[in-house]
Amino acid sequence: MSRDPLGPPIVAVRAAVARALEEDLTPLGDITSALVPADVEAEAAFVARQAGVLAGTDCATETYAQLDASVDVAWDARDGDEVGAEQVLGRVRGPLPSVLTGERTALNFLCHLSGVASATRRFVVAAGDGARIWDTRKTTPGLRVLEKAAVRAGGGVNHRGNLSDWVLLKDNHLARMTIADAVARARAQWPARTVHVECDTIAQVDEALAAGADAILLDNMTLDEVRDCVARRGDGRVLLEVSGGITLDTVGAYARTGADCISTSVITQSAVALDIGLDVGVSS
Amino acid sequence: MSRDPLGPPIVAVRAAVARALEEDLTPLGDITSALVPADVEAEAAFVARQAGVLAGTDCATETYAQLDASVDVAWDARDGDEVGAEQVLGRVRGPLPSVLTGERTALNFLCHLSGVASATRRFVVAAGDGARIWDTRKTTPGLRVLEKAAVRAGGGVNHRGNLSDWVLLKDNHLARMTIADAVARARAQWPARTVHVECDTIAQVDEALAAGADAILLDNMTLDEVRDCVARRGDGRVLLEVSGGITLDTVGAYARTGADCISTSVITQSAVALDIGLDVGVSS
Amino acid sequence: MSRDPLGPPIVAVRAAVARALEEDLTPLGDITSALVPADVEAEAAFVARQAGVLAGTDCATETYAQLDASVDVAWDARDGDEVGAEQVLGRVRGPLPSVLTGERTALNFLCHLSGVASATRRFVVAAGDGARIWDTRKTTPGLRVLEKAAVRAGGGVNHRGNLSDWVLLKDNHLARMTIADAVARARAQWPARTVHVECDTIAQVDEALAAGADAILLDNMTLDEVRDCVARRGDGRVLLEVSGGITLDTVGAYARTGADCISTSVITQSAVALDIGLDVGVSS
Amino acid sequence: MSRDPLGPPIVAVRAAVARALEEDLTPLGDITSALVPADVEAEAAFVARQAGVLAGTDCATETYAQLDASVDVAWDARDGDEVGAEQVLGRVRGPLPSVLTGERTALNFLCHLSGVASATRRFVVAAGDGARIWDTRKTTPGLRVLEKAAVRAGGGVNHRGNLSDWVLLKDNHLARMTIADAVARARAQWPARTVHVECDTIAQVDEALAAGADAILLDNMTLDEVRDCVARRGDGRVLLEVSGGITLDTVGAYARTGADCISTSVITQSAVALDIGLDVGVSS
Amino acid sequence: MSRDPLGPPIVAVRAAVARALEEDLTPLGDITSALVPADVEAEAAFVARQAGVLAGTDCATETYAQLDASVDVAWDARDGDEVGAEQVLGRVRGPLPSVLTGERTALNFLCHLSGVASATRRFVVAAGDGARIWDTRKTTPGLRVLEKAAVRAGGGVNHRGNLSDWVLLKDNHLARMTIADAVARARAQWPARTVHVECDTIAQVDEALAAGADAILLDNMTLDEVRDCVARRGDGRVLLEVSGGITLDTVGAYARTGADCISTSVITQSAVALDIGLDVGVSS
Amino acid sequence: MSRDPLGPPIVAVRAAVARALEEDLTPLGDITSALVPADVEAEAAFVARQAGVLAGTDCATETYAQLDASVDVAWDARDGDEVGAEQVLGRVRGPLPSVLTGERTALNFLCHLSGVASATRRFVVAAGDGARIWDTRKTTPGLRVLEKAAVRAGGGVNHRGNLSDWVLLKDNHLARMTIADAVARARAQWPARTVHVECDTIAQVDEALAAGADAILLDNMTLDEVRDCVARRGDGRVLLEVSGGITLDTVGAYARTGADCISTSVITQSAVALDIGLDVGVSS
Repeated sequence: MSRDPLGPPIVAVRAAVARALEEDLTPLGDITSALVPADVEAEAAFVARQAGVLAGTDCATETYAQLDASVDVAWDARDGDEVGAEQVLGRVRGPLPSVLTGERTALNFLCHLSGVASATRRFVVAAGDGARIWDTRKTTPGLRVLEKAAVRAGGGVNHRGNLSDWVLLKDNHLARMTIADAVARARAQWPARTVHVECDTIAQVDEALAAGADAILLDNMTLDEVRDCVARRGDGRVLLEVSGGITLDTVGAYARTGADCISTSVITQSAVALDIGLDVGVSS
Repeated sequence: MSRDPLGPPIVAVRAAVARALEEDLTPLGDITSALVPADVEAEAAFVARQAGVLAGTDCATETYAQLDASVDVAWDARDGDEVGAEQVLGRVRGPLPSVLTGERTALNFLCHLSGVASATRRFVVAAGDGARIWDTRKTTPGLRVLEKAAVRAGGGVNHRGNLSDWVLLKDNHLARMTIADAVARARAQWPARTVHVECDTIAQVDEALAAGADAILLDNMTLDEVRDCVARRGDGRVLLEVSGGITLDTVGAYARTGADCISTSVITQSAVALDIGLDVGVSS
Repeated sequence: MSRDPLGPPIVAVRAAVARALEEDLTPLGDITSALVPADVEAEAAFVARQAGVLAGTDCATETYAQLDASVDVAWDARDGDEVGAEQVLGRVRGPLPSVLTGERTALNFLCHLSGVASATRRFVVAAGDGARIWDTRKTTPGLRVLEKAAVRAGGGVNHRGNLSDWVLLKDNHLARMTIADAVARARAQWPARTVHVECDTIAQVDEALAAGADAILLDNMTLDEVRDCVARRGDGRVLLEVSGGITLDTVGAYARTGADCISTSVITQSAVALDIGLDVGVSS
Repeated sequence: MSRDPLGPPIVAVRAAVARALEEDLTPLGDITSALVPADVEAEAAFVARQAGVLAGTDCATETYAQLDASVDVAWDARDGDEVGAEQVLGRVRGPLPSVLTGERTALNFLCHLSGVASATRRFVVAAGDGARIWDTRKTTPGLRVLEKAAVRAGGGVNHRGNLSDWVLLKDNHLARMTIADAVARARAQWPARTVHVECDTIAQVDEALAAGADAILLDNMTLDEVRDCVARRGDGRVLLEVSGGITLDTVGAYARTGADCISTSVITQSAVALDIGLDVGVSS
Repeated sequence: MSRDPLGPPIVAVRAAVARALEEDLTPLGDITSALVPADVEAEAAFVARQAGVLAGTDCATETYAQLDASVDVAWDARDGDEVGAEQVLGRVRGPLPSVLTGERTALNFLCHLSGVASATRRFVVAAGDGARIWDTRKTTPGLRVLEKAAVRAGGGVNHRGNLSDWVLLKDNHLARMTIADAVARARAQWPARTVHVECDTIAQVDEALAAGADAILLDNMTLDEVRDCVARRGDGRVLLEVSGGITLDTVGAYARTGADCISTSVITQSAVALDIGLDVGVSS
Repeated sequence: MSRDPLGPPIVAVRAAVARALEEDLTPLGDITSALVPADVEAEAAFVARQAGVLAGTDCATETYAQLDASVDVAWDARDGDEVGAEQVLGRVRGPLPSVLTGERTALNFLCHLSGVASATRRFVVAAGDGARIWDTRKTTPGLRVLEKAAVRAGGGVNHRGNLSDWVLLKDNHLARMTIADAVARARAQWPARTVHVECDTIAQVDEALAAGADAILLDNMTLDEVRDCVARRGDGRVLLEVSGGITLDTVGAYARTGADCISTSVITQSAVALDIGLDVGVSS
């Protein structure tokens, strides 16, 4: 199975897994597995305990690769797949102590990232075809690369990756500049780069449209206000983002307004882990 | 204000913040704040948008220390404090671009870790005086040190820090050994170290008691079963842990059984971020 | 002097300097300066040996900060300033051995990055007001963050920071897709993000314009071809980039075609170091 | 093909490549290649666009090894080979997205390091048999290990690797000591280690000869002065280094003076990248 | 041969070896082996020059794995084995330059860690069956993980891995608390975790027993005092540790007192390296 | 007190201390000191428990700097000083928990490095004025930079820092080359760099002298053989090193042979830690 080009960069996976293993094994290693006979072979299965969307398989594979090269990991499902309760997701085969030592690290990645993918998918489904679900920079420190990949696995799309990506003018940036001035300054300093403006009022939206912004964040607006903004955009290519307290209950209605993207931090910052376990069997 | 000895080790804070800043600023830096005049001074306040328990202040302080030594951060509340909606938690003063560049990194730590502390506190309150709330190893990869400190801020206590900490014999470890053999082997290999046994049945609990375990994990037992185990313990000093699907609704009843600790992964793995914002003002 | 928001992120400076010092001092330290009396105080000056544009001052400051906190560094010029031969750029004061130990590391940053800034400025001046000078991803491995900041110091602007920044479709990406398909796929997967298309022919430019690209790279075109593309753009907002073998001799003519940006790898990949020295005096 | 013992230490290659990939892929990965079908296989060739000397092949190989283990890299030429325009240097085979993702990182190493090797070779050829070309510590921060290996590939030889390598007494070190005192002190503190003295005048050269230096740097001397120093050396084994503004035009004459080594920072600090490209073909 | 579950965590081995190789090879690599023909194959043997206990084989294997994948390393003995003078411990086969480059790094690990294992074994043998030999936190900075594994190879057991492992109350901690208060506070804050109390007097031992400590460190007590403490323990499960200036001459007598563990820093902090060499042969 | 230029590079100190603290504090921090009231101030003294030579003060200072900026460390003695039993070496003042948390890490550096310095000094004194004591590459992996500095503090001098430093031809390098060929090859490849030849026989010494080596290692020779070699050297400047099983008993006689340097691995690889403690007092 070739690498998924939308998956996380393997160099980021490698670094994150190395940190997680060091965190779980320093300074004495797995002192419980050290009591288990090393020549017992185990066959284990990653099994979903509830339905959801899988993500993080690269991290689980890498966990065992870093721990013990004699452990084999093979997958029956891949990132982005909808999986059901009791479904076998993948298999781990190798010396029992190594299989047990890697279990929690592999699962911590799988459960957390599948939680992000699953939350994303719920918003994507609720939004329907009307608008895309966008993530934010409200991610877990140190895990952004992996969480953004999990959002993609869930069917969402990635907003700015970080502060270096594109210009997003918020009210605090505009304390000493008009929107028009700020957009012009952004165009001059960062040619060809997206210029995005956060707006709280219709008046600001008009300013941002006039200034030629590439994208406008409609912050905490009602459905009617959003529809009004969609109308004001007319044929223009500016992307309209809706943000601010959107829930699974309201995302469908906002998605039908004609706005392009609905962003939410819930899918990264407050995703509930997907319950996945490792069922371990020992060959007799 | 001297450092809180129960707070996270500062060396771990330093490393986590460096990673988070690199993640948010590579390769071009904060391209939006670069458009803002550098000589504008800002005064900003971390403000809770909802009630909860604060954690992560060391990380927020360190974020600005690493970004710009001319930024001052001072706190009105500290880790472990219960804070109310709209309460000012701390203040940031310095050049506007630096204040804005650090905002999201500082908040990602504060919101996530305060989310962990707040979830912990809810379980602690629901449990009352009957039992302590224990965390697990189901933490976010790379953030365990900080999340375990946040659990302490929330009033919970820390279970094993990692696989190196103490012996915890689960069913998979016992595939080829009796509980008695395994405990004896653990005592021999790791003197003075906690030996903890996971039990699914009353019969196993009796075995573990007979084997002289220091702690017993009662996995997925009913209230009656737990009470039975408490009775079987008698005057023994063995610690009884209750685990498996405990919720805010059930934790109180379990806490009143006489068990010592109730462990839950919900407080780390599935904690919802506490909503905290940074209100920025610009001196005129 | 507050930090320049267009300067390099300080976290990147810190890491690059730590690596450079380790590289120059492992394993025995500066064995020559160890022969010099430690109680001699030195006053030294960074002096330009030729005219150019200064960059890298943060790195030089950080070099001494990491080596010896008792060394003071103060600047008479700052990144982006045009400096003349024999001009004093900054001053270093401290114990003679420390001043000498840091000299080459500080100068390696200053000379290399000022070389990048100076080469950039020459292109900027030659281009005049007609078009902006754009850098590329053809940077020195490990130093991109600093070189991109040096380009800004030279008056140039930054193209993509890296592969994660925006979509740039080259012929190899288009092996199995039409431009129209690829642009549509890019819009769907990466909303609000710049979609840039490399074109070798006028026919491709027409395709890219029709597909709604945000920017078009005109690769190796003659002046007449570029002018033709400018005309075809009409009132559209698409950015036109000229690239391919542009030199100081030809950049002016291309800049007057009406294209927006002229990109060149010469300013990073082949910049000649600016000659800067450290004149050291010893207080009697 | 066994590893070239004069090549760069593989541990340094590994670290430099990891940093370069992180720099190019954080935080979202290669967002353009992610649009390309993952199951298309590519065959690509590194091709010289101009004549020069190859270096950096280990880095290019390592780039793909870190990115995707299923990519094969094979070389038709090796570090140190003179290559002609349009010559195929090596071949890359693997999934199209992976081949494209690694392209620029691999080329940045190859072009920069081959530029260093090529500049070195030009000086070596111009010097003829008379003297060796020596590099300096004026290298790109963080890349010294690789640049010094590229100098060797070019046929040059390595001066001090860093400040820890040998004693090099410059005027600033001699502010409070005579040459004789300093050499004696160096011999006492660092037995068996090279003691090298920088001299601006014939009088200093005589002092250094009398003091028993191992090597003397003749700084900014005319051809006649250098010849005079060669004569003064007589049968002595002291190595004579010529330094200061040597160019391709003057290096031959200096090499014929009888001096041993001619050092120049031009070959590292101001080397122009060798133009190498990756021609990518897609199997039909 | 499957990995020894009591061996050092491989992730710690990997990091320690990478640091050691960087330390030995920066910046120019192995400049002597670079003079040797690369196509000569060597067969080499790790040979004990004196009798002792082997440890560190993982580190030696990893050294060559990081240096040159074409080098094979195979072992005739494994960690924990008693080896005799002139015994062949393992074999290395590969290109001569690579074999020589890795020699000292591999041996530095083997000799140091085997020295720790051998010193441990001497104490273990001298103690006989009476008590276990316990290590301490007095380890070489940065090598604790490996040294603790070497102690296990020697037949010793591991005391606290670090400050995070368990509570050990020393006189300085008790400056403001009674033993009873401190133990109670420890139980409350760190449930199920070992609480260990250092005692200088019999009176303190009685306090610690009454407070319900899990383990008591009897510091600098005479044999009679230790026997007295053993008697006072009675049937209790508290572990008694003897510490303070125990030597090979006295360890047997202390071991026969009935105490459980005897700790000594000599085995880590002052272990003499075991003399192991690499005999290299070159195929004709 | 200005930094000692012969001390360890501070950048190496910083990295080693960071690793040591992480090793001692992950994942939960100092769980015992966390029980101590944070507002108690401590005054503590580093006190020698036996006579020896001090080293490692920079590491102890850095330990507290990284742990808690409010802790003050001041020294009454410095690296290289001979200290007596019960002598106060330095003082630590700050919050009691922080003082205790740093104690073992600071002492591990001090005791180990002072052990190296003390062992070195014993050899230096035993050798008298006849010859210098030289260290080797037989150092503790990861600590070479610090151990080499401790050797200097002890009055010894540093042999090669690592494989990159100078050429040292041993029998295995000479398997396919004569000494004359190898020295010539070394001179050609590494001009001005020390060429050192290991010799087991007088015949080899003659070869090495004829080949013009800079230094000759006389391996495992008798006193008479060494004297013979000294005679054969005559007026030549070649440095003669004596090596192989030299002890405190024999070093004086070897030193009086006229050889220049006597190298021993005992001072690094098998140094016994100097006993230093931290006496902690709590202000009433």
